[in-house]
Amino acid sequence: MAGRYAVIMAGGKGERFWPLSTSRHPKQLLALVGDKPLIAQAVDRLEGLVPPENVFVVTNADLVKATQKAAPQLPPGNVIGEPIGRDTAAAVACGGALVKARDENGVFTVLTADQVMGDLDLFSSTLKGGMDLAEQNDILVTIGIKPTFPATGFGYIEMGAPFDSVEGVAFRKADRFVEKPDEATAAEYLSTGKFYWNSGMFIWSVRSLEKAFAAHCPEMHELMNVLSLYALDGKIDDGMAATYPALGKISVDYALMEKADNIVMACGTFAWDDVGSWPALQSHFPQDAAGNTAVGSVEMLDASGNIVLSKDRLTAVIGLDNVVIVQAEGVTLVCPKDRAQDIKQMVVALREKGGYDELL
Amino acid sequence: MAGRYAVIMAGGKGERFWPLSTSRHPKQLLALVGDKPLIAQAVDRLEGLVPPENVFVVTNADLVKATQKAAPQLPPGNVIGEPIGRDTAAAVACGGALVKARDENGVFTVLTADQVMGDLDLFSSTLKGGMDLAEQNDILVTIGIKPTFPATGFGYIEMGAPFDSVEGVAFRKADRFVEKPDEATAAEYLSTGKFYWNSGMFIWSVRSLEKAFAAHCPEMHELMNVLSLYALDGKIDDGMAATYPALGKISVDYALMEKADNIVMACGTFAWDDVGSWPALQSHFPQDAAGNTAVGSVEMLDASGNIVLSKDRLTAVIGLDNVVIVQAEGVTLVCPKDRAQDIKQMVVALREKGGYDELL
Repeated sequence: MAGRYAVIMAGGKGERFWPLSTSRHPKQLLALVGDKPLIAQAVDRLEGLVPPENVFVVTNADLVKATQKAAPQLPPGNVIGEPIGRDTAAAVACGGALVKARDENGVFTVLTADQVMGDLDLFSSTLKGGMDLAEQNDILVTIGIKPTFPATGFGYIEMGAPFDSVEGVAFRKADRFVEKPDEATAAEYLSTGKFYWNSGMFIWSVRSLEKAFAAHCPEMHELMNVLSLYALDGKIDDGMAATYPALGKISVDYALMEKADNIVMACGTFAWDDVGSWPALQSHFPQDAAGNTAVGSVEMLDASGNIVLSKDRLTAVIGLDNVVIVQAEGVTLVCPKDRAQDIKQMVVALREKGGYDELL
Repeated sequence: MAGRYAVIMAGGKGERFWPLSTSRHPKQLLALVGDKPLIAQAVDRLEGLVPPENVFVVTNADLVKATQKAAPQLPPGNVIGEPIGRDTAAAVACGGALVKARDENGVFTVLTADQVMGDLDLFSSTLKGGMDLAEQNDILVTIGIKPTFPATGFGYIEMGAPFDSVEGVAFRKADRFVEKPDEATAAEYLSTGKFYWNSGMFIWSVRSLEKAFAAHCPEMHELMNVLSLYALDGKIDDGMAATYPALGKISVDYALMEKADNIVMACGTFAWDDVGSWPALQSHFPQDAAGNTAVGSVEMLDASGNIVLSKDRLTAVIGLDNVVIVQAEGVTLVCPKDRAQDIKQMVVALREKGGYDELL
């Protein structure tokens, strides 16, 4: 059997979880849900499938130390820093190079750190089945998630003909990748039963990835080859410094998934959320009868549907509904749930204003 | 000329300004507006009319030390503690006793500490004119404030026939005291030009007050006499302890003003507010173009009409209107302006819940 590896992409700045998450402590390094940082949970979820020494994390260069600390089960050298963010295709090529340097016949999964999952046995079966298939076939496996509601915050994958069934998990050809839909379209997708959420998780062999890059994105093919040589010399950081600044920003969806015709979708049925915002996070916390989620020292009067995180001080809320209140890092954020997407804008405004660097 | 005195009632718990104001630091001890505690500002406003040694403050027994500290211009012995709150009639009788012990022919004004005033020259003239009249006539002077809007938060006084004019201030007989009106009634009061706000400020001689108590409220007449004897012996605290627990709770309006027929109203035209709530306080602070009042470190995005006090941490507000946010004493309060009257209820709920005593 070929060696099995994982590449966890952990490059996000996590502005959507400000002020709990800051540029120095982005969400993948925080225990947003559960009692370990998201990055450590992502490594733990691979137990029995991929040993920690075969797990690589690709993150921002200035987060390498913090990431090593947050996921101490990893060999420190497995945490690689990107000198500058260059979207997911480059991170995948970098991860592919690291795996290739270890094992040209290797198979690996690409995961992201800022996700929350349930039904871990099902997740494991899905990964294992995908790895088995990726070892035996020249395919690019993407993990789709069976939608449980008409989400407008995710892209979708339309499933095609059956491909195989392994470990009790169905694998089908992927017919089409579509962008985040509007509500009506999302409802239609859900009703057909043919559309899965695009989770951004992949499985492939080093060989199939190289072949696909060669065919669809020569720049990333070149990058992967160059970086694998640096990695063989134990000089991956030099390789990143030499290559990254000149790279274009391309997503793996755009570079590969929307172009290749050998894509297979795993029909994932495990619980999954990318916890992209405070409101999305709420479903992972208990709620009281009025739909309030309160963590820490919180008192509410005639209030419903709120999310209040207040560990270090008392937050008293009167007569407000569906509001996010977060106390962290010497900051209080107050924002209606349906305006949570504007938190980024607030962070940008504070950055421009100046004087708040320690809080951002 | 008879000696001139002042009695400042400062007994409120200030729950309406929680969490900035707490039971240990009620609003009269805070610099809510201006840079001195309200109680110190109340003493300063008497400059040229009543020297500090003639100003008495009646407050809660457990606030005596804090009040002495907040108004250091007063002789410490002039701050008297009530062992238990017994409404305004008792506080007035107590103040009357203190003045009587100094000067049986004295004239004094009764003020409260939790007020904000402008046009201080006009205020001074009003007080001086009232004191002159109270010295020469057996009358009870109440200070009315010419309304500037149809307030529903104050009681009103209907003015009667002209009585006199002193220091450029008109004094008229008071025909009627009315409770806080509804909006329609308040608008009607305003349109007639005959109704003034009941400020709760009074001016009278020791003799006229005694006479009025004797006629309308024998319990307070007795209290004033007994306490003046204790005060003559330098044992006012013993007197308070001996008398207060058995007293009924009666307001000065109920005990005297609604019954006496020798009431004269000063037609006050100075700026006045009793700052009874966070929304009422807002008019005393600058507002930005969107009607926001921000004190301290505050950043707002698409927000209007808010009041945000945040001296010790950054408060970031997105997409909220007409909300009060107060950061103080390790507490964050978030409450719509039109629910500010429920802050008391929150304080009560926290008190019952327990564990928050230091914050209340």
